[in-house]
This record gives sequence, structure tokens and C-alpha cells, in this order.
Amino acid sequence: MSRQQREALDDLLRHAPLDVGGDVGEARAVFHDMMTGVPLPPDVTATAGELGGVPVVTVETPASDPAHVLLYLHGGAYAIGSAADAVGLAGDVARRGGARAVCVDYRLAPEHPFPAAVDDALAVYRALLDDGVPSSAIAFVGESAGGGLAVATLVAAKDAGLPQPSSAAVFSPWADLSVSGDSAIGKAAVDPALTPEGLRTRARDYLRDTDPRTPHASPVFADLTGLAPLLIQVGSHEILLDDAVRLAARAAADDVHVELQVWPQVPHVFQAFAVMLDEADAALRAAADFTRAHWAASQATDAFGEEPLAGKESVVRQ
Amino acid sequence: MSRQQREALDDLLRHAPLDVGGDVGEARAVFHDMMTGVPLPPDVTATAGELGGVPVVTVETPASDPAHVLLYLHGGAYAIGSAADAVGLAGDVARRGGARAVCVDYRLAPEHPFPAAVDDALAVYRALLDDGVPSSAIAFVGESAGGGLAVATLVAAKDAGLPQPSSAAVFSPWADLSVSGDSAIGKAAVDPALTPEGLRTRARDYLRDTDPRTPHASPVFADLTGLAPLLIQVGSHEILLDDAVRLAARAAADDVHVELQVWPQVPHVFQAFAVMLDEADAALRAAADFTRAHWAASQATDAFGEEPLAGKESVVRQ
Repeated sequence: MSRQQREALDDLLRHAPLDVGGDVGEARAVFHDMMTGVPLPPDVTATAGELGGVPVVTVETPASDPAHVLLYLHGGAYAIGSAADAVGLAGDVARRGGARAVCVDYRLAPEHPFPAAVDDALAVYRALLDDGVPSSAIAFVGESAGGGLAVATLVAAKDAGLPQPSSAAVFSPWADLSVSGDSAIGKAAVDPALTPEGLRTRARDYLRDTDPRTPHASPVFADLTGLAPLLIQVGSHEILLDDAVRLAARAAADDVHVELQVWPQVPHVFQAFAVMLDEADAALRAAADFTRAHWAASQATDAFGEEPLAGKESVVRQ
Repeated sequence: MSRQQREALDDLLRHAPLDVGGDVGEARAVFHDMMTGVPLPPDVTATAGELGGVPVVTVETPASDPAHVLLYLHGGAYAIGSAADAVGLAGDVARRGGARAVCVDYRLAPEHPFPAAVDDALAVYRALLDDGVPSSAIAFVGESAGGGLAVATLVAAKDAGLPQPSSAAVFSPWADLSVSGDSAIGKAAVDPALTPEGLRTRARDYLRDTDPRTPHASPVFADLTGLAPLLIQVGSHEILLDDAVRLAARAAADDVHVELQVWPQVPHVFQAFAVMLDEADAALRAAADFTRAHWAASQATDAFGEEPLAGKESVVRQ
């Protein structure tokens, strides 16, 4: 009874005390309580550490193949959230993906403005490569600001001359810090979680004097040529719907293998609610399929020296 | 070695004698030769008939479950092509989808202008329903103009008060007869098959005095609210890339379950070249997965009186 599930989630979010655009200290505390309110499954382990000088939390489940790494970038509008707060969703993604998730505790605004978050994400990716993890065994995953950051980090990796990871899957990415998409207005009434004003406040914290259209902050304005295969998932009850659509459009124009999946009438990062929403479960399964298929394709490439075969996930799915 | 495959196909299409915008009689003959040049597999049967007063060709394979019907709409810029010409690709889609394909021989322009094609497609759909085939056992499939026509027919079905089919999968849809997408210019150099001028010629044949933005001709401008789940596949070497992207954007804004899959550096309706191109095989498998999953979801709905669960294809895929 999906409609009832959707209505229950909408109601839950509308009554949540989180104000993404409000006082940062208060928003961080409320977000932490929201994200950690559900106990972790007993077979999920979360281990604090450091990679490339950046704090990380590594999340593992019995299904985690140590050879595969998800570089996981949490949400929170660049000012809220933490690697520890993301352990619940990262653990779910890691279990389905059969990998360990390395959640990056990138520095937050306003204390640490752009490009601190990109620098930290890239430092962790570089450290994984330096540790001998092949790029073909790494996939990026990110949600909300972490989704935009995941794509920005792909661009930064390209600009730094690093190889691309095997793929990236982003959930409800915030990919335009100028908040200029039509859905910022068109979907405002049906979005139970975010407001354009709240995002603009957080964008100012993160960007300070940087142009909101700068490619490493707003990858809808970046040259995406050469990026890894990209899966973009979004709900239709989101002011960020157009960020997802325009990111797909930009990737398509730039000859990137891209899949956009839009689930109707579900909210921002609905994947976090798999316990109560069938769409979340389905979306997480699709993301795991995509990630696993591109690992397989990339590793075939490594083994045989051929380029990746676009669209091979469908073959692998069979 | 997918790059070699892509280059071979590009070369093949650049040297093909088809001029989509040229003399209609000649283009029809050349297109017929191109589409029927490869012999059908011996286990594919094609049977001419009539449904709702419209000629059809029903395509079956040993894998065809008679309970499931693909209403198949061929390409050819509304002026070229036929149900018989489409039997090869329709047979491939029918085999993978485990269904029979009913290829609609809709009337062509310039002899029969808009809305003849939409009227014919809708008449066949209505006749299937009148024959007792449940809407949940019908999926639409269309390529090129047939892809735009498939979505136009979904809109026309809604406007006529008919139920939606279980899903629709469209390959490189021509969904904007005003040819106003950025890719009409931006991708012209890399598109080996189509030109904006050719499409504009054929649009004039089809539309005569009708506004090119009329929703039943150009569904990128239609209200898509309430439409069946929609899979849109496109290559990035197409002047029609933006038709696919904008159709996805419109569907997303209108709360339709929509998936957009963009394969890099492949041409218009690359799915027709599965014998020589890995991407075509992968795309056809993905389309079959999507169609089968939504049949399952729709039939669960019929049985239990609940609404379809969005995104269930991912569950079924496992």
C-alpha cells in the first residue's frame, strides 16, 4: 500500500523538528538525533579511522567483500551531518552492494568553506588509490549535498589526472548551489523536507564569495566529459528534482553513461526510509545492481585491457 | 571492444543511402530494404491482421506468452516505415519481453496528416481492451517517431478516459516536432542518421497547419500526469537526445515513474543493431526487465485492488 506509506512519510517529515536553513548548531543536533534514532542492525560495524589525513568511518556488514569500497559522502547541505550520522544508510547501501563503505567526515561550512569538502573527498579517494585499491574496485555514493559532492569529486579527480572510479550513484543530489531549477518553486509546496531559502542560506555559508555556478560546487555547470557511469535517483516531491534532471542532461550531452530514475511522490533522500517505504527498498536494490554491474565491467576492463562496455549492468543483472 | 563496434555502426549509418528528409517514395523503399535486409530468425512468425479497423502485424516467438501484448509503434518520421518493416526489431523485443508484439500499421504522412497516426494507435489499443485483454497485460513500445507516438497515445488514452497500459518503453523518441532541442544543433555533427532539416520536412508533412507544439504530436509539451511508468532510452550521438531528456523531465515534473537511460556515443535507435553492438543487447535486456516488472506490478494491483508499487522492477529483477 504504497500511497499510505508515502503519506505517512510525508507526514513524518513535515512534523520533524529539523530546519535545514536554521541555526547550524541546533540543526546539527536535531539531524544527529534523527539519523541515529533507529538502532543499527547488530551485524553492522562502524570503525573510526583516518585516510589521507581526513577522518572517516568505515562501515561493514557480513556481506561486505573487502575488495570493494564505496566512498560514501553524507548529506546535510554542506553544514550539517557527519560520517557517524550516515552509518545507518551507508550500512544498508554497503550490505546491498557487498562492499565496505568508507564514510568521509569532510569538513563542514560555515567553519570550513568551499572547497574544503571537495578537497577532503578527493584526499580520501587518492589515499585509497595510494593504498593499492584499484579504481575499478571503488564506487562513489552520495546523498543530497553528498550527491553533488560525489559528482564534484569525480570532476576534481579528472582535473587532478586521477582515474575515475567504476561508477557513482547519487540520491537526490544537490548539484546547483545557485538554486535556480524550476522545481525550487514548482515543487516547494509538495516538498516536506527542504525550502529554497534554507538551501540558499547554506549555500552562502559554504561558498562565501565563490560563484554559486563554480563547477566543483555545482556540477550541473561542469564539463562532465570522461566521468564514470552515473546513476541518479530522485523523488518527484523535491525542490531538488531539477538538480537531478539537469545533472542527467549535462552528463548525457557530455557522452557519459547515465541513468536517471525518478520515483513519483516521494521526498528528498527517500532511500533512508526503507523500513517504511517500498520505493526506498526498490531504489536501493537498483543502486546496488548498478554499482555491482559496473564493478564487474571495470574489472573485465582491468583484466583484458579493453575499455568498459557501456550498459553492461543489464547483462550482469540477468 | 565496444568502441570498435560503435565506430563500425557509425560508419555503416553514414554510408547508408537513406535520406529521411528526401523524396518520400524513395525513402520508403530504401528504408524497407534496410529494415528487411537481415532475414528473420526462423522461429519468428509475423501474421497480418486488423484490429479496430487498423492493419496490424502480430509478431510471435516461442517465448511469447499469449497473455501479454506489446503494442509496437514503428519509426520513420511519421512518413516512412511500416509494421512489416519493423518485424525484425519487434520480434527481438517480443522474444525478450516474453510477449506477442502487435505492430500497428498506422497511416503515414503526407497522405494522412496528424492526428491519423494517434487515432490509429489509439484504435488498436481500444480494440485490445474491447477484446478483453486487461490494460495491465499491455505495454507500449515505440522507436523514433513511434516512441513519440507511444507517449502521445498514452496521453490520448488518458484524455479518452481509457486506463493506462502497464508501462511504456521508448527508444530514441521523437517527441518535439518543433525540433527545438539544443541537441538538434549540438549533436548534429556526431549524429550519423538524422538531420534537423530532414525532421522539419517530415514534421511539415505530418502536421500541415497544426501547431508543432500540440501535445498529441509533441508530448514534451503535454501534461503527462497520470501516465504509465515510462522507460526512455537514447544514445548520446543523436540530435534527438534532448527529446528524450525533456520527455523525462516533463514526466518527472508530472509525478510519473520515469527512467532515462543514456548510452554514450551510440546513434538513433541503436537497439536495432543488437547483432553488432553490445549496448543494443544491454538496452533491449533493460527494456524487457522494465516491461516484465511492470506487468508483474500491474497484475498484483489487479489481483489485490491496490495501486501499483512504483519501482517494483528492481525487486523483480533479483
